[in-house]
Parts: sequence; structure tokens; C-alpha cells
Amino acid sequence: MKACYEYPKSREAFLRAARVIPSGVYGHLGPAEGCFVPVEAFPLFSSRAEGTYFYDLDGNRFIDYMCAYGPNILGYGDPDVEEAAARQRALGDCTTSPSTVMIDFAELLVDTVASADWAFFAKNGNDVTSMAVMLARAYTRRKKIVFFKGYYHGVSPWTQKLDYAGIIEEDVAHNIYLDWNDADALEETFRRYPGQIAAVISQPYMHGNFADNVMPAEGFWQKVRHLCSENGTVLVIDDVRAGFRLDLQGSDHYFGFEADLICFCKALANGYNVSALCGKDFLKNTASSLSYTGSYWLSAVPFAAGIACIQKMKRLNIPASLNETGKKLRDGLIETARKYGYDLHVTGALALPYLRIADDPSLRTHQAFIAECVRRGVFFTNHHNHFINAAMTDADIRETIEVADEAFRVLREREA
Amino acid sequence: MKACYEYPKSREAFLRAARVIPSGVYGHLGPAEGCFVPVEAFPLFSSRAEGTYFYDLDGNRFIDYMCAYGPNILGYGDPDVEEAAARQRALGDCTTSPSTVMIDFAELLVDTVASADWAFFAKNGNDVTSMAVMLARAYTRRKKIVFFKGYYHGVSPWTQKLDYAGIIEEDVAHNIYLDWNDADALEETFRRYPGQIAAVISQPYMHGNFADNVMPAEGFWQKVRHLCSENGTVLVIDDVRAGFRLDLQGSDHYFGFEADLICFCKALANGYNVSALCGKDFLKNTASSLSYTGSYWLSAVPFAAGIACIQKMKRLNIPASLNETGKKLRDGLIETARKYGYDLHVTGALALPYLRIADDPSLRTHQAFIAECVRRGVFFTNHHNHFINAAMTDADIRETIEVADEAFRVLREREA
Repeated sequence: MKACYEYPKSREAFLRAARVIPSGVYGHLGPAEGCFVPVEAFPLFSSRAEGTYFYDLDGNRFIDYMCAYGPNILGYGDPDVEEAAARQRALGDCTTSPSTVMIDFAELLVDTVASADWAFFAKNGNDVTSMAVMLARAYTRRKKIVFFKGYYHGVSPWTQKLDYAGIIEEDVAHNIYLDWNDADALEETFRRYPGQIAAVISQPYMHGNFADNVMPAEGFWQKVRHLCSENGTVLVIDDVRAGFRLDLQGSDHYFGFEADLICFCKALANGYNVSALCGKDFLKNTASSLSYTGSYWLSAVPFAAGIACIQKMKRLNIPASLNETGKKLRDGLIETARKYGYDLHVTGALALPYLRIADDPSLRTHQAFIAECVRRGVFFTNHHNHFINAAMTDADIRETIEVADEAFRVLREREA
Repeated sequence: MKACYEYPKSREAFLRAARVIPSGVYGHLGPAEGCFVPVEAFPLFSSRAEGTYFYDLDGNRFIDYMCAYGPNILGYGDPDVEEAAARQRALGDCTTSPSTVMIDFAELLVDTVASADWAFFAKNGNDVTSMAVMLARAYTRRKKIVFFKGYYHGVSPWTQKLDYAGIIEEDVAHNIYLDWNDADALEETFRRYPGQIAAVISQPYMHGNFADNVMPAEGFWQKVRHLCSENGTVLVIDDVRAGFRLDLQGSDHYFGFEADLICFCKALANGYNVSALCGKDFLKNTASSLSYTGSYWLSAVPFAAGIACIQKMKRLNIPASLNETGKKLRDGLIETARKYGYDLHVTGALALPYLRIADDPSLRTHQAFIAECVRRGVFFTNHHNHFINAAMTDADIRETIEVADEAFRVLREREA
């Protein structure tokens, strides 16, 4: 039986952090979002990362199923991406005139992504979802935006909720929230607000938190696509989280339709800091008309990294390989759970699995299971989807299943 | 006489860019903002950058007075910054748990910046100005924001204008625009909207475009500071552009007051992609309460670069040295202009000089002067402030003055 990890150095570092950083560690990566990570089992700080592993301050090694919440798709420090980045870095990164590597990257995206006639680069997923909404409003001269409940499109006020800190009524005054997979409700909304809906924005499938992830119902996307076209509304796909893990041509392509605008970030450059908005030709002039830029948006190194990342993902057919790894993980986890009498639900795409132990309304059994895994070096999280990366081997999956076996056994014994 | 540069390869690349990128090259760096750059003299793309120079696709070398619009403060590829970045990169960059280099960077900022009790990191200047406004609204539970005309605080809807593409009334409904240096107007505004003003946001001095830059009037900041404190309003300084070029302790410190929140980006890490919001203790808990994060915000390499950058800026007392270089540039340019009968105004901080030829209401003489300089390898811009970096030598300034001399002579001959 594997000894459980302890985190004395991480705990000490966290006290230092809390003195000079709000929340100590903020966002998804922090323990404040205790809903996502098992706080008491959480390593808090990493000392290094390589391939599919990261090592914490106390020397503990983790098989990383969060992949920095998505960016790590090829493995930390992928040699091909690092080499391309280093080559560009020797020439220049953030310079007064941009490098032509920006054009190469845009051309590659246009060649790769089915719905892309052009590409625009920024730094955050939020930069490009926000640009998509501004672009849709500018193009349609309308105000209303349709969301599907359970969405996450970033942190700008327009995409937050009225009861969140710092948000005012005006920020969300034109937001309409519908149930996922309810195309009839969307049709009814178009009838109710004729000529008023600028955009429908959505993830390609519902990969929300605290709930089983849900694939699109049969015909849902085709109906949404049809309604948007019919009503002159811009269909925006937020592929920040799922992008390139389902389909290198875009998750819209995976589900058999074409978005008007599609947002990428995370897996775009294996962790190098870049995001992209891709879109259809008819929106290109309006994109040009927006006042939208940032100090680092044309930095060359992330573009070079992005090119190497996409080329390698194509060469290795990464979505197929992640799908295969994800299937082994799912099958192994479900079978192991069943062995101890637990009903583990694994939902969403196989490359982004969401885990939930059924018949556990308080969520406590699930959280205890996740904590036991993390303490044994398998970095899962509570109520957020996971991410598979291409550096994961069959041995990693085997070790994961062994750890899960031990975690379920500990749980069962505790309950006995 | 120096031969004038030509840009056939850049022009060719631009045609390629325009096919797959809205505007070809967007933002400040693009020719679409022809107000800022002399389009016909503009190199459009760079092939490499080193120290204070960048080289375009056609092999032309430029002494770079734009410094990537600010980030380049120590010189492109500064060896100390690059070494620190490389060391961290070998350990990890964008990982599931952050590196403690984040804490080190926050501690260094708290030690360095006078008004900083804490630091929060993001990617864009816009991320942190937007956070400052959300934070002020959350803390005060008020809506109104006071701006000073001529401001630039980023690209989010709240900071744009109603006549900009994609902006709706609700985005700017609570914005109040006052004249720069008019403390009486601010006092009147507080009287008119008692208990309603969440924040006053301002650059440390007015470094607007298309206008001479204007320092704060005697006592202006002290009165603004007093009015904000008296009214429970959060005073936000946007030091994204001027930060670390005036004073390593913050531009508020330079002008003898303390902000409640101060925003940094650009010069923070010599081009590595990171921004920071620093603030006073009384706002820290509210900062923690915001829902605000991004995929790459805790990436470790930019933190390591930022630490090396700030340490070197301290060691070399960079603001004093930039000030000295800026003084030589100003004196040389004004004297050279006078020699040919032109009245060149150089305004703003010496490290961020704004240039304007007086008695030129059509701006054409000024734009022709800038174009003649750029075509001879001195990268100035039309109606935006410039940036001095620490790699500039006396020889660079001498070459600049020689080029300016030739440019003025060409102008005079053309007019004869």
C-alpha cells in the first residue's frame, strides 16, 4: 500500500502567499475553490513538471489529470514545442513590429479549423469570447446574447452573474439564459425577441461544473445553426476548454455543424500564452472595425509554439489518441468502482472526463474518493472535468487504476 | 546622406497577412492606425530584435523608440531576464499547481511599489484595469466611474466609447468624463453624485494621443487623493504605460501621493507576458471575493522574468538613466529642429517623450518629419508617446539626432 502524501512545505508556502496575494492562490488553481479540489489533500505549489507529471514542493509526484486546466495537451516541456519556441525566442518575442510567424500561425489555423476563414490572436480565452460578443453586437447592431445554463465563458462582467462581486445590472441586462439541449426554447426566444438577438454563445457540449457533462442531443446543433442563420444571429462556439481534444478541425466540426465564430485558448500552444478567435469571412471586416488590442498580443514565441503544437497534434492524430487513453481510464475506473459497490459515472468527451459517484447527494463520498486518489499521486479534482494529455502511457493509466482501487477500498473500509 | 529604406518584403508579407488576419496587422502595431505610424514609411514586420534595435524583413535596422509600445525597457533579449526565464522554463511554466516564484514576485512588488500591500497577476493591462473597476464596485457597492478625457485604460467595453464598434449604452452608462487637471470639476462631481462614485481611474499624467502630454498641475493629485478618501471612492492609477519608467516605487509615488489600486503591465517583465494589480490592504478581501482568473495567469516563466527585470531596474536605477537619455534626446531634437526653423514640442516624461511640431494644424509637416526619420532607421511614431529603453547608448542618440537633422533638412528643401 502506497504511503499517503503530506504537504508541509506547500502549507508553509501558502501562508507566505496569503500575506501578499489575495486568496493566496487564486482561481481554479487555488484552494479557495474548494468545490473543485480536495483542499486537505491538495499540493498547492509545484516545483517542476515534465510530461504528464508534476512534482510538488514536498517532492511528491502526481499523474496530472488537470493539465493546468487544459493547456498541457502534448505533455509538459514537449521537446518539439520547446524547440520551436526557443528558435523564435532567439530572434525576438514581444517587438515593435510583429514577426511573420503570426501570419504562418493564422494560415495554419485557417487550414486546420473548418469554420476559420481568418484568425485573430490575444492572450486569454476571455479576450476572444469578449471579442466575439462585441463583434456580434457590432455586426448585427443588436444587444441580446443567448447563453446555455451551466456555461463558463470567462471572467468579463458580461459573462458573470448579477450576484457575483463587482457585477452591476447593466453588465448582464441583455443576457438570456436557456436550458442546454432545449432547441424549442431557443426557437421560442427568437420569436419573442425578433431581430434583437446578436449572438448565441455556447460550449460545443455542456462541460459544466457540479453536474454530469452532457453531449448535444441528436439534431440539437443542426437546429441551433438553422435558427441562427434564419434570424441573422451570430453563432459563437467557445472551444476554449474542449478545443483540439475532440477534433483538430474544431469541436463544431466534430458535432457536424459550422460556427460563425470559434474561440480557442488552452491547448492551442501547449501552455504558451496565446488565444485565438477564428471566424467566417462575412465577419472579417467587422472584426477589423473593433478597437481591440493588447500589449503582448502579437508576441512571436507563443505563435511559434502554437504552430509546432498544431503540427504535432496533426502528425500524431492527438484527438484519436486522447480518446483511446480516455476510454481506458473510464473503463478501468468504472470497473474498479463496481468492484467495491460504487456506481461511478464518467461523462463528457473521453478526453475531458467528468467523474461523479452516484447515489451521493452530499457529494462527500465522491470528495473523499478524489482526496484519497490525490494523496496517492493521482491528481483528480472534485466537480470539474479532467483533461487527458498525449504523454500519458498505459503504465500511467494502470497506476491510476491501482490508486483508484486502493482509494475505493479505503472508502469501503471507512464505511464498514 | 543615408539611403532611404524600402520595404518590398514587408509589403508582400502584409498582403499575405491581410488574407487571414483582420486588418492584416491589428492594434497599435498595425498600419490601420495610420494616425500613430507613418504608413508609407512603416516596416510592418520584424525579422529579429536585439538591445535597442529591431530589423525588418528587408534587412533594415531601426533604433526603436516604441519598445513594443512599452514592454522593452532593458533592451530586447536582456541576458539577465532571459537567463532567469530559461532557468524557470526548465522547471515548468503553465502547470496545474503554480510555482512559488509567484510568491517571490508578489513579495518583490510589495517591497518595491509604495502603494502595494498585495499583488494579483494576469496577462493584459486590460485584465487589471478591468479588475480594478470590478473591485471598486464590489467594495463600494456603487456604480459610477470617473475618467479623465484623453485616457486609455484598455479595450474592455466599460473603457471604450459609445460610438466605437460593438459598444452598447449599458457598457458606459455610469462613466463620467472630466477634464484633466480640473480638481474643481471632480469636487463638483462628488457633490452632484454623493455616495455614488465607486472609482476615479487615471493615468499618472495625461499621456494621451494626438495631443501634447500634460503633467499634473501643482496640488492636483493631492486634491484628488483627498476627495477620494473623503468620499470613500477608490483611487485607481493606471500605470500600465508609464510604470517603472518614472519611479520604481510607482508613478503615484513619483507625484507624491498613494493610489488605492495601481495597474502594471508592459515594463513589468521586459516583454514577458504578465500584468499585475497591486493594492492597499483594505481592498485585499474584496479582491479575493471576485470571480477572476485565466488559463495562463499563474504561468511561472513571466514571474521569473519579472523578478529579474525589477531587480535589474533597481540595481541600475533605470528611471534615472532613462530620464538622462530622454533629456539628451529632447535637447538634441529641439535644437536640431530650431536649426531648420521648426518649433518641436517634446512633452510628457522624458522617458516617454511625446513629439509635435508646432504651427502645423494639418499635422502634415509632423507626419512627414516622422516618416523621413523612420525611412532612415529611427523608429518614431506620429501621435503617440515614445518609449526610451536602457540599452540606448549615446551613440544611438547621436545617430538619432543626425537622422533628425537630415529629415528636417529634407522637409525644408521640399517646402522651398
